[in-house]
Amino acid sequence: MDQNNFRTIQSLGRKELINELMENSTVQKDTVINGVGDDAAVLACREGAYSLLSSETFMEGVDFDLTYTPLNHLGYKVASSAISDIYAMKGKPDSLLVNMALPNKLSVDMVKEIYKGIYSCGAEHDFQVVGGDLTASHQILSMSITCQGTVGEEEIVYRRGAQEGDAVCVTGDLGGAIAGLRILLREKEYWQDSQQQQFQPDLEDYEYVVQRQLVPFAQKKFIDTLEELKMLPSSMIDLTQGLVSELSNITDASDTGAMIYQAALPIALETRQVADEMKEDVDKYALYGGEDLEMLFTLKKEQVEQLADTFSNFTVIGKITSEYDAPVMQTGEGELVSFTEDN
Amino acid sequence: MDQNNFRTIQSLGRKELINELMENSTVQKDTVINGVGDDAAVLACREGAYSLLSSETFMEGVDFDLTYTPLNHLGYKVASSAISDIYAMKGKPDSLLVNMALPNKLSVDMVKEIYKGIYSCGAEHDFQVVGGDLTASHQILSMSITCQGTVGEEEIVYRRGAQEGDAVCVTGDLGGAIAGLRILLREKEYWQDSQQQQFQPDLEDYEYVVQRQLVPFAQKKFIDTLEELKMLPSSMIDLTQGLVSELSNITDASDTGAMIYQAALPIALETRQVADEMKEDVDKYALYGGEDLEMLFTLKKEQVEQLADTFSNFTVIGKITSEYDAPVMQTGEGELVSFTEDN
Repeated sequence: MDQNNFRTIQSLGRKELINELMENSTVQKDTVINGVGDDAAVLACREGAYSLLSSETFMEGVDFDLTYTPLNHLGYKVASSAISDIYAMKGKPDSLLVNMALPNKLSVDMVKEIYKGIYSCGAEHDFQVVGGDLTASHQILSMSITCQGTVGEEEIVYRRGAQEGDAVCVTGDLGGAIAGLRILLREKEYWQDSQQQQFQPDLEDYEYVVQRQLVPFAQKKFIDTLEELKMLPSSMIDLTQGLVSELSNITDASDTGAMIYQAALPIALETRQVADEMKEDVDKYALYGGEDLEMLFTLKKEQVEQLADTFSNFTVIGKITSEYDAPVMQTGEGELVSFTEDN
Repeated sequence: MDQNNFRTIQSLGRKELINELMENSTVQKDTVINGVGDDAAVLACREGAYSLLSSETFMEGVDFDLTYTPLNHLGYKVASSAISDIYAMKGKPDSLLVNMALPNKLSVDMVKEIYKGIYSCGAEHDFQVVGGDLTASHQILSMSITCQGTVGEEEIVYRRGAQEGDAVCVTGDLGGAIAGLRILLREKEYWQDSQQQQFQPDLEDYEYVVQRQLVPFAQKKFIDTLEELKMLPSSMIDLTQGLVSELSNITDASDTGAMIYQAALPIALETRQVADEMKEDVDKYALYGGEDLEMLFTLKKEQVEQLADTFSNFTVIGKITSEYDAPVMQTGEGELVSFTEDN
């Protein structure tokens, strides 16, 4: 093959790649309400309800590192990530398929540990493991999780509904997962340098951010609150790829822009301390970090007040605008900055 | 970890491993009609119908080899394998999720080739690609496909319904896929020995078996025929792991035994020729080969005749018995042989 024609996967952004891959799709089923392009696929189900389907793939060495990831945490995290996509449509998870390619270095009991993490997530979020597939792998553990959930036809929230003037909100805080990753990678390096057989990392001071990285919680409580209040955000997405990337997904789908206020970004004290230690910019953690599994959503002004009355764990970080065609950020000094292309 | 306690994954059979992994499952959803233990999970759907979910994982170097697998064939095969599980419940596929971990050696256009194979399968079997996930991989291409389908509540066929006296039947012929694999592996070895840059295998004489390996067809026509005839097999499963293994799945689930007639095993002439060339036993191809994606099913005697009137591409290969608690085989000489434990 002509090397000049070899377009690397990295040469395209994630969205461009997906668009190219979907180009040749021809079949359109009546039962598919919404296919590729949101957190989960939306399928016709019983009267008044849709079925939701979403998948996540995790590769060892890329998406996780077994050096510092307890196996039950890994199971919990991949399950959390899959059901987070169901919550992002305001749905509830029902069932899970677990696919694994298993290398020889894992024993039966180690694989059971992974499943324990999945079941522990299942007990919290009320889903059942209903199947999957197991195959062998030469060296690398690979996991794919598919989650199926349900949502009322009148309750589903897409990415595409944001409107000018809506408040841009986020649950919890940002950048914690990447801060935890930085710490774990530093400890791993230290361990490798010191040639010790047993890896006993000293993580006491970093408990919060390490938990954010290893055992991220899907936002059940927030979704339950929305249901209690019978409140529908105008748009919603979960924070897998990082704030800037996911906010672009909302503004692209909604055909709007957005302005976020740098000073409003919710960042935990411990996340700031890690960035200081690493001599890095904590706002970059918050803007690009990814994996926080918080919910990013847009609300009308009156909804903001109503939500705040019963649920405190969210922050208004900006507003939807028609002035820009991509998110911009207002700094503390009032300067406007745009973001480099996300991947 | 104490090495004595390291139970390798290979030390358990596939069923035992799955049973151990499911041990700690606690959540039981009302919406799950049937979880782990059949070709697809069965979920409550609209009135009168169930939703089916099934997943397949394929790892490079274990389940496929890119040296001799055209990328569009790979896409076709993984899709075929996933929908075959839906057909095995007598369902129809509706939608597909495609998960891939992509190494750098693949260009955008190479990944598009994989998708073309998936879409080509989709056009034949009328399913829509509705989502999935893409991640990076250091070296190895990993694919997981989840298929969602639908089946009428009164039309679903499980593995567990086989009854004493039922005829054991199989569509098409057996052992072709493994024969194709043998040829492809021989050509690969030849190529590696000869140090040629360009791999130009001579496969003209082996077209049928190579197609069975690289582009296996899911049994739509057979399922359509059953529907036309309003005929329900008492049990059904698709041939992924090989005849002996899949028949054990039926007899285990149905709490019966089975006797198959060696002389009745349907084997294509070309498959026999390959076994001869390789100096191997062609019956082993047929019994243990796997990946044929044919349907193994059980019928009442009167159903066999009725089916034969309109559909010729199946063979009665044995009968369900209560005498044995696992499948046995009657040789041409009338001798009874039992099978070694399958994996």
